[in-house]
Amino acid sequence: MISFENDYSAGAHPKILQRLIETNMEPLPGYGTDHYCENAVRKIREACGCPEAQVYFLVGGTQTNAVVISSMLRSCEGVIAAETGHVNTHEAGAIEYTGHKVLTLPEHQGKLDAGELKNYMKKFYEDANHEHEVFPGMVYVSWPTEYGTLYSRAELEAIAAVCREYEMPLYLDGARLGYGLMSEEADMTLSDLAQICDVFYIGGTKVGALCGEAVVFPKGNAPKYFMTMVKQHGAMLAKGRLLGVQFDTLFTDNLYFNISRNAIEMAHRLRALLHEKGLTFYLESPTNQQFVILEDEMYRKLSQKVALSFWEKYDETHTVVRFAVSWSTTEEDLEELAEILKVG
Amino acid sequence: MISFENDYSAGAHPKILQRLIETNMEPLPGYGTDHYCENAVRKIREACGCPEAQVYFLVGGTQTNAVVISSMLRSCEGVIAAETGHVNTHEAGAIEYTGHKVLTLPEHQGKLDAGELKNYMKKFYEDANHEHEVFPGMVYVSWPTEYGTLYSRAELEAIAAVCREYEMPLYLDGARLGYGLMSEEADMTLSDLAQICDVFYIGGTKVGALCGEAVVFPKGNAPKYFMTMVKQHGAMLAKGRLLGVQFDTLFTDNLYFNISRNAIEMAHRLRALLHEKGLTFYLESPTNQQFVILEDEMYRKLSQKVALSFWEKYDETHTVVRFAVSWSTTEEDLEELAEILKVG
Amino acid sequence: MISFENDYSAGAHPKILQRLIETNMEPLPGYGTDHYCENAVRKIREACGCPEAQVYFLVGGTQTNAVVISSMLRSCEGVIAAETGHVNTHEAGAIEYTGHKVLTLPEHQGKLDAGELKNYMKKFYEDANHEHEVFPGMVYVSWPTEYGTLYSRAELEAIAAVCREYEMPLYLDGARLGYGLMSEEADMTLSDLAQICDVFYIGGTKVGALCGEAVVFPKGNAPKYFMTMVKQHGAMLAKGRLLGVQFDTLFTDNLYFNISRNAIEMAHRLRALLHEKGLTFYLESPTNQQFVILEDEMYRKLSQKVALSFWEKYDETHTVVRFAVSWSTTEEDLEELAEILKVG
Amino acid sequence: MISFENDYSAGAHPKILQRLIETNMEPLPGYGTDHYCENAVRKIREACGCPEAQVYFLVGGTQTNAVVISSMLRSCEGVIAAETGHVNTHEAGAIEYTGHKVLTLPEHQGKLDAGELKNYMKKFYEDANHEHEVFPGMVYVSWPTEYGTLYSRAELEAIAAVCREYEMPLYLDGARLGYGLMSEEADMTLSDLAQICDVFYIGGTKVGALCGEAVVFPKGNAPKYFMTMVKQHGAMLAKGRLLGVQFDTLFTDNLYFNISRNAIEMAHRLRALLHEKGLTFYLESPTNQQFVILEDEMYRKLSQKVALSFWEKYDETHTVVRFAVSWSTTEEDLEELAEILKVG
Repeated sequence: MISFENDYSAGAHPKILQRLIETNMEPLPGYGTDHYCENAVRKIREACGCPEAQVYFLVGGTQTNAVVISSMLRSCEGVIAAETGHVNTHEAGAIEYTGHKVLTLPEHQGKLDAGELKNYMKKFYEDANHEHEVFPGMVYVSWPTEYGTLYSRAELEAIAAVCREYEMPLYLDGARLGYGLMSEEADMTLSDLAQICDVFYIGGTKVGALCGEAVVFPKGNAPKYFMTMVKQHGAMLAKGRLLGVQFDTLFTDNLYFNISRNAIEMAHRLRALLHEKGLTFYLESPTNQQFVILEDEMYRKLSQKVALSFWEKYDETHTVVRFAVSWSTTEEDLEELAEILKVG
Repeated sequence: MISFENDYSAGAHPKILQRLIETNMEPLPGYGTDHYCENAVRKIREACGCPEAQVYFLVGGTQTNAVVISSMLRSCEGVIAAETGHVNTHEAGAIEYTGHKVLTLPEHQGKLDAGELKNYMKKFYEDANHEHEVFPGMVYVSWPTEYGTLYSRAELEAIAAVCREYEMPLYLDGARLGYGLMSEEADMTLSDLAQICDVFYIGGTKVGALCGEAVVFPKGNAPKYFMTMVKQHGAMLAKGRLLGVQFDTLFTDNLYFNISRNAIEMAHRLRALLHEKGLTFYLESPTNQQFVILEDEMYRKLSQKVALSFWEKYDETHTVVRFAVSWSTTEEDLEELAEILKVG
Repeated sequence: MISFENDYSAGAHPKILQRLIETNMEPLPGYGTDHYCENAVRKIREACGCPEAQVYFLVGGTQTNAVVISSMLRSCEGVIAAETGHVNTHEAGAIEYTGHKVLTLPEHQGKLDAGELKNYMKKFYEDANHEHEVFPGMVYVSWPTEYGTLYSRAELEAIAAVCREYEMPLYLDGARLGYGLMSEEADMTLSDLAQICDVFYIGGTKVGALCGEAVVFPKGNAPKYFMTMVKQHGAMLAKGRLLGVQFDTLFTDNLYFNISRNAIEMAHRLRALLHEKGLTFYLESPTNQQFVILEDEMYRKLSQKVALSFWEKYDETHTVVRFAVSWSTTEEDLEELAEILKVG
Repeated sequence: MISFENDYSAGAHPKILQRLIETNMEPLPGYGTDHYCENAVRKIREACGCPEAQVYFLVGGTQTNAVVISSMLRSCEGVIAAETGHVNTHEAGAIEYTGHKVLTLPEHQGKLDAGELKNYMKKFYEDANHEHEVFPGMVYVSWPTEYGTLYSRAELEAIAAVCREYEMPLYLDGARLGYGLMSEEADMTLSDLAQICDVFYIGGTKVGALCGEAVVFPKGNAPKYFMTMVKQHGAMLAKGRLLGVQFDTLFTDNLYFNISRNAIEMAHRLRALLHEKGLTFYLESPTNQQFVILEDEMYRKLSQKVALSFWEKYDETHTVVRFAVSWSTTEEDLEELAEILKVG
């Protein structure tokens, strides 16, 4: 059965596996101190245009969010996120487990609004009792968002301006960063993001790796003892090579960008297919996820032939479902989907 | 340069990499719900002789210790460990980060003593003020220990008896479990361990995998919502297949045991070599780690030709160093070491 | 200057101070094991009609909420509260500091709605991904609420029914419990509350004590080692007598209820005064807090003669302010307020 | 029955109760912002000779230790304490609950040794793997210690020098500070302590108050948002006046010092009595606690007439017990004890 269920249903890009095999028996020091990690750091610095950036490799997204956020907040500070932010919804309370509140603002197709953020901050400090409240200490955005949408440069810079005014770091969750960067709608490069954000991560798991996320502190502004905090969270691999080799490969010959571009091309075709079929979009995103509203009966039938994600009930008789493509989606997958939709 | 630095300096066993390649493009559901994970669970249950065991795959050892221990303790309980227990020394406070104290008892070549444990428990409950103290709520042992030593069956059963008396679970850290099981000194099988312990993990990272540890609750006694707690700790892989395929492979055709046996054979040769050279053993272990005392000058010279682990300063002019072998150590490695020792 | 700023601006009821003096030099054991604590426990059990209740004395409300909630939740569970619940707004993240998320539902004059709670629970368990989310593990209500409103018996029982269906304890924050019980609108007694709730606390700080809250587990259902968890949170007084004597006094000769009734009488007069003046009520509560909307200029002037609480800005030119009375409010206070309002 | 059980068995010094009564009905703002708190802060600054000191009032010792330590450490740092340090033994894991390890060093009559501390720090940074370990981030000493002993100025300055070298704050737990300052053996004043330490607290609970400890950051070096962290720990009283009035009274007309001196005089008589009786001292302290070894039968008999503290079993037939005096101990108490000992 073909799968449009998510962007982590396949393994790794073959070049990554190839490099894992080639380097497999080389004895290497542990914990991210090997030369593949060093190479990957160097290449990521270059790709970001930040020679002084600090780059760390962690294993997964929830873990990365917990380590980055908790390491940068004072104990009575919380992190601001859109209601739909991954840290607020699907991380089983990982941020709260580190002792910090997720302070939610309304979402607009998954995005924060800079004006609302500014008002929130103003109101917070005007409140005579704010010393009894959680201090907003950081802003979390995802790019692409959980709905596949993208902040424009102007939108992100407006948020960054509020962050600077209130001396809060701006953190960008780039679980699907490649798909954002390669979207036609994107008006920012990786280097732009590195200029605007205080910390972000380049997602590997959903963009060609078996696992792994690269945290970037573009201004060399990592908290003191960051690696020890990574260890303390159980987020450090003994065989750090597994992450080093993968990111070294992804950032060699533009692999990360090239495979992301493939996903965007497949997403275009997917959208076209869904439009042809006359389906109602819940949200038509410029990246690799598309959300459509299906009649429950159609959803049931379709599910027997293609793996999809249930998103939420739309009403009594309809359901919002997600179609996701990824670096591994092929033209054949889409042709097969076209056939299924034709029949279905 | 050859390496006896640790047991995680190579990548994965080639059969594992091969299976990762063979299964790479198969679309699979995420988060450990794929059929490779299911197969691995089934095979581990069989290997443990526990049809009702619950088995979960986590990524690394520190993470596993933190998740298991924190999920099984009440908030005012601590975990008892030998002073040299990994949870007490080299996990950057990961247990304390979850809110729990590590209660230390003296170590005897890395091992707890059942009599001392019993006395500790008796004294704790005799103390009129014990309600103001951390309650001992679990016992942590490693097998093999951090020094490569092994509890005998009698020793482990004596500890388990104290645990039962005080209704504390007994948790066994099996980061190097294979090397223990294949040691000639071991008088317990995997199935024996599963009978004696309340929870343990089968280490993958140090025994042939790229990463991964299999937590086993042999009596189906996992805490409620265990998987959600795994997620909350950032310990769940989106591509759970990475762990499923590895453990499925390790527990097919006895691979886990066979490669562990190789390490033990190499360890025998290593010990012989070190004896031939007339080196003083700090601790001669029955498993894959050997600790010797070197004059600092000899250590310095040797370090230029072979990667070793500094353990600790012995005195002003001597150092304790560790030689570790693993599943990946070859006869050629040992021959080269023999040459180096002959000259050095 | 007279004060309607809050219900903790005076010290303690004189009878409490009197008893503190009378008992002051008596040598007593520490940590809540003295006979005043025992007496207080016995009297509270009687007042609640729960002979098997467990009663513990803590110092303040935020502390009590943190200890009770964290001691009753599994690590991946959160507590459901109205958006305006004290635990969600004015406790500086004390609940999150213990590792737990506050899961918010809409508020209706400070109250949860049982139907919305039920829908939330249904939807949670219908969601295929709920294992990646914080499990709702407890329901928090305040009675009176932060807005002074009261759940009726039917409303609270409806919430309790949902709690039972989903096996979640129902926790009632009674910081101002006395004022609720003595309100004419209340259709529940202390004994009724003890039947309906799984745990609640009887507020002392705002009802006549210098400090202190009495936590009641009406069914003898306190978590194991509860006192040690109290200690672990730094919530245990060495001189437990301070709490014992206060609650012993409050529950002797109905003092707690009598002084609460006084507050309710004063609240009636206050409401009448505010109506006479023709002020617009933001929320007219049946207990000791009244919320009115003032023109900013009037607010400014009034603030020079009487201490009030700023609640929030209503619009550009108006402000919501709170008038609070308490056990210590006197007829003279109200007469003085009447004078001020007449002139102002 | 007379009590030498501890130094918190009586209530408050009568002058404190009197002031509580005198100020009781005055309406005051909450949370430590009233003028009694301000007065107390001013007087404590003067007593410490630190005009720029920041002073905060918390409720109890365990709470104070948890708030101060957790607010000053990075998440992967721990606090160094003697094995017998209160934070390591009798706080139910309150420090670990905040996520931090207590790193223990040997105790010498309850005291840390500066040389051992220095060696520990040196060894820590020499260890190649220290990035996987808990970083020592603070030093905790108690003065007097849990055994009633006192660091001399030279001893404390030697510890402070190590702290400065390694940029760790030195924190002094002064639960019984008054008894230390008034001891003849003390060669430091309050002002000296304020010079040497980075943060300390002046114990109220054991020195005349009903409850309360005054935290002093002598160099104005309190962590940002300290009060909010106090709130987050549930350590802030709504009726902050309770602490303000008490400390204002204790630091008026040298009350704190005078009542402490009384305890020291009583301690002298106690020691003389115990010597006269020919009892064996386990530890003869220069402050208000004395530890003697009693035959179990004698201990049993004595316990029927005088309240004592069991400390620990000495051997099969002997027990270490503690006699404690305090500000409230009278000559009559000692005369009665003399009678009992004569007979017993």
